[in-house]
Amino acid sequence: MSLSNIEIAQAAQLRPIGEIAEGLGIPPEAVIPYGATKAKIALPYVQGLADRPQGRLILMTGTSPTPAGEGKSTTVVGLGDALTRLGEKAMICLREPAQGPVFGMKGGACGGGYAQVVPMEDINLHFTGDFAAIAAATNLLAALIDNHIHHGNALSIDVRRVTWRRALDVNDRALRDLVLGLGGPGNGYPRESGFDIVVASEVMAIFCLATSLNDLKRRLGEIVVAQTRDRKPVRARDLNAHGAMTALLRDALAPNLVQTIEHTPAFVHGGPFANIAHGCNSYLATSSALRLADYVVTEAGFGADLGGEKFVDILCRSTDLRPSLAVVVATVRSLKYQGGVDVADLPREDVDALERGLVNLERHLHIVREVLGLPAVVAINHRAEDSAAEIDALLAACERLGVRASVAKHFAEGGAGAEDLARAVIEECEPATTEPRYTYPLDASLWEKMTTIATRIYGAEGISADASVRAQIRRLQDDGYGELPVCVAKTQYSFSTDPSALGAPEGHTINVREVRLAAGARFIVMICGSIMTMPGLPAQPAAASIDVDDEGRITGLF
Amino acid sequence: MSLSNIEIAQAAQLRPIGEIAEGLGIPPEAVIPYGATKAKIALPYVQGLADRPQGRLILMTGTSPTPAGEGKSTTVVGLGDALTRLGEKAMICLREPAQGPVFGMKGGACGGGYAQVVPMEDINLHFTGDFAAIAAATNLLAALIDNHIHHGNALSIDVRRVTWRRALDVNDRALRDLVLGLGGPGNGYPRESGFDIVVASEVMAIFCLATSLNDLKRRLGEIVVAQTRDRKPVRARDLNAHGAMTALLRDALAPNLVQTIEHTPAFVHGGPFANIAHGCNSYLATSSALRLADYVVTEAGFGADLGGEKFVDILCRSTDLRPSLAVVVATVRSLKYQGGVDVADLPREDVDALERGLVNLERHLHIVREVLGLPAVVAINHRAEDSAAEIDALLAACERLGVRASVAKHFAEGGAGAEDLARAVIEECEPATTEPRYTYPLDASLWEKMTTIATRIYGAEGISADASVRAQIRRLQDDGYGELPVCVAKTQYSFSTDPSALGAPEGHTINVREVRLAAGARFIVMICGSIMTMPGLPAQPAAASIDVDDEGRITGLF
Repeated sequence: MSLSNIEIAQAAQLRPIGEIAEGLGIPPEAVIPYGATKAKIALPYVQGLADRPQGRLILMTGTSPTPAGEGKSTTVVGLGDALTRLGEKAMICLREPAQGPVFGMKGGACGGGYAQVVPMEDINLHFTGDFAAIAAATNLLAALIDNHIHHGNALSIDVRRVTWRRALDVNDRALRDLVLGLGGPGNGYPRESGFDIVVASEVMAIFCLATSLNDLKRRLGEIVVAQTRDRKPVRARDLNAHGAMTALLRDALAPNLVQTIEHTPAFVHGGPFANIAHGCNSYLATSSALRLADYVVTEAGFGADLGGEKFVDILCRSTDLRPSLAVVVATVRSLKYQGGVDVADLPREDVDALERGLVNLERHLHIVREVLGLPAVVAINHRAEDSAAEIDALLAACERLGVRASVAKHFAEGGAGAEDLARAVIEECEPATTEPRYTYPLDASLWEKMTTIATRIYGAEGISADASVRAQIRRLQDDGYGELPVCVAKTQYSFSTDPSALGAPEGHTINVREVRLAAGARFIVMICGSIMTMPGLPAQPAAASIDVDDEGRITGLF
Repeated sequence: MSLSNIEIAQAAQLRPIGEIAEGLGIPPEAVIPYGATKAKIALPYVQGLADRPQGRLILMTGTSPTPAGEGKSTTVVGLGDALTRLGEKAMICLREPAQGPVFGMKGGACGGGYAQVVPMEDINLHFTGDFAAIAAATNLLAALIDNHIHHGNALSIDVRRVTWRRALDVNDRALRDLVLGLGGPGNGYPRESGFDIVVASEVMAIFCLATSLNDLKRRLGEIVVAQTRDRKPVRARDLNAHGAMTALLRDALAPNLVQTIEHTPAFVHGGPFANIAHGCNSYLATSSALRLADYVVTEAGFGADLGGEKFVDILCRSTDLRPSLAVVVATVRSLKYQGGVDVADLPREDVDALERGLVNLERHLHIVREVLGLPAVVAINHRAEDSAAEIDALLAACERLGVRASVAKHFAEGGAGAEDLARAVIEECEPATTEPRYTYPLDASLWEKMTTIATRIYGAEGISADASVRAQIRRLQDDGYGELPVCVAKTQYSFSTDPSALGAPEGHTINVREVRLAAGARFIVMICGSIMTMPGLPAQPAAASIDVDDEGRITGLF
């Protein structure tokens, strides 16, 4: 009987976090412990690393996921451990898991099996408080807006046009749409609003894009929260909110150091959604890791069409991050799903379905190699149920596609199972300075940018939008936001906006349903199809089986 | 020019928290550091202290406060430091400050002047994440309720009778009353609800009353969140929520160790409001401190009529805590306010007003000594503007009242300024085992209990309530909750329910406006008059002047 993730994690022998930091050459005074096995690395130290030479950045991306995900985080851990085993100085960078989904369906998100970051329960619950700080900053800004309106509204904020929403790290559909400020004059002006999950908030995106504490404050001040009655933007700095928000976020901005089960150092820091936001851990974590290690593996959420594209077009464009290689995670399971197999039937061997699903891998490889200009390696994240015939078919396909592939068994075997993948990565990756290609030029119009993403990345014929959305896009263009990159919010399950259109759909049209300005994060969110910014809980939530035993051990987290 | 609280705090030389713990005999493996100057003390260690002999517990209470408060926390710190200076092994226990008010009017709440707990910014902002954990547990339960209703409502919860509210640590009046679940069937069933500030939540009260992790879980399971369509209670355990809530609170339940500017060890842990809840730091913190030190000073919120009464009738009654002495904090300023002086005029000498206000001190002393049966000492918390004539009048009054009084100058001078107070405390306090008197017997009916509190504590003639409230009280009595103590929620500014009725009003009637069952905290909240469970921000919120400077230092916190 195999052990659950939490059982494996709880059985792991962790090293004191000071030792892990020492191994990276971090001086003790820069290590801010949170218990014995977690630490923040002091911001002044982190910011002082900028002059050091950078290691090589390996970007973990993947094919379109099944609803269960395809183990990108797990492969980040496995690859990091394998690089360490091969004697390389390696670090990994991951997003912090959202707490909300832990109590829903997904369970924890710290890798899996023998490829996990630990302490797993801590990282999944509260961790070092970063998400609580991001929620607090978001909600303070919201309170200041309604408070300003209540006390005379000197800025003439149009209560119908307050776009800033509150945030909580919980899966709570009842908070998606609400009317607040009810109960009479003492409680302010009633208006429609709602809560997003923290990982979907603009403050989370800003937190992960900020290059320094000052940059964070500047970006927070730029947030557009509402419009005035004559349609002028109202910014957080107009409410003098950005200083207090920065105070709330100051400690959180220091990267969190933990370790894998095999003691590879890991920064787990920040965690924006890859469908509504840019989907990668904090810039400061990755950037610092590159100054502390020779190889840094980081993850871009969902497939190459979402996190991969955004990593290059949003994150690389605004920072000095330059991936030397992309690892595209594929599983037999996900490709069978792309080939049309129902989730329930995925464990059964089905080489034909796998072959049908290969177009999905091919498209993602095309995005990585042709569009974004990155060398690629395919990591076949092995599962116990994969048949030899399926694996062979997948390996043969990779050969046909001219991409090096490696079967990685880190879930079952830890880093030892991913050594071949690590060797492939070392041999294929380019120097740290390689400039990626961008999907679109920044000086194209917003409409052109979205069209280019739709055609080059999603294989669409073009884009569409209602007159009101077109007008909104034009208005943003006219208001001087035309230079910003576009952050597409769409389903992760398909290149189209229809989650059931699997494989590699072509000729479809991407309809832009809504446009949001993220002036602090500095991108324009184009919402295509329906995207939840606040998840719900399932009929049988995981919360019901999570418990604490008499020894104080947390059980039922999976 | 005198320094602000934050300037004094930031100039303090802190000792490593491991040293502070070592001084208490806490082994290093029980110290869970949160940075260099904060730590949690591991729960198994804390729970293992129970067999040790207890030190003496000094309960800090006070007269009715002015809107600015009268420096009870500051006096706790000053007395603790003075006891340490006199060679006693002393500890202090304080509530964690709520983060919401930090951005409103009140500013920080870690003592003041040279009598502060530090690191002040950290304690005021996030600290070790306890309040975020309490909010998360509260909001997870709320999400599980609405989720249960959404997915078929097997428990037949009456959506009109869901009493459980969400919580956030923010001053946000717009969240007091709202309609959630809007936006169509996918978002659940619309219903009225709202948010309370975390310090007013039942989970906060439970957290502070829990005697162990198991007791915490049991109490969380007992929370009544709603009624069914046939008016049966729905509990958190009916939703299997209490295990997951306990998992969220597990780490938070370990007490937080910090230090005063003069290095006296301090547990700062938990922080329920004293108007809506029982108003004292966690039982576990006080109880552990009593096993680690010979003198432990703790604070009960607001005057003796609120926090003081609840400390005895709620906390002592359900635990082994036994105060050896009560220190009643009085200020010239507060007594002049009680004598009818406007807040703006309080700095001016006015002995007559002070004399008029003395009835307030007299009433509080009566409560402490006659009703609750505790020996008392009056601490005159000295302010720079107090005139010699005012101080003399106050000292003379104390002599008339037969109570030992001491002018304490810890705000300006630190512990050295409170040594005389410390000597008075040592000399007057009784052995640790003294049983307090309770205001009412537990087997009285709920109506009788409330009547007894109103007459004996508030000097009222009796109580009143609408028929519907009377019916609710009867119902609670019939449902088996008649044995619980009563937790009165009322204004802290007056013995009556009218905040402007100063001094020592008599003959008034206390009207019970609303009754709430706190089945997990195990008390019945009787709301008398209007009490906010979610504060608002003022027209000029402190947030606007809080900032982070280029060195990363937080400024503008006062």
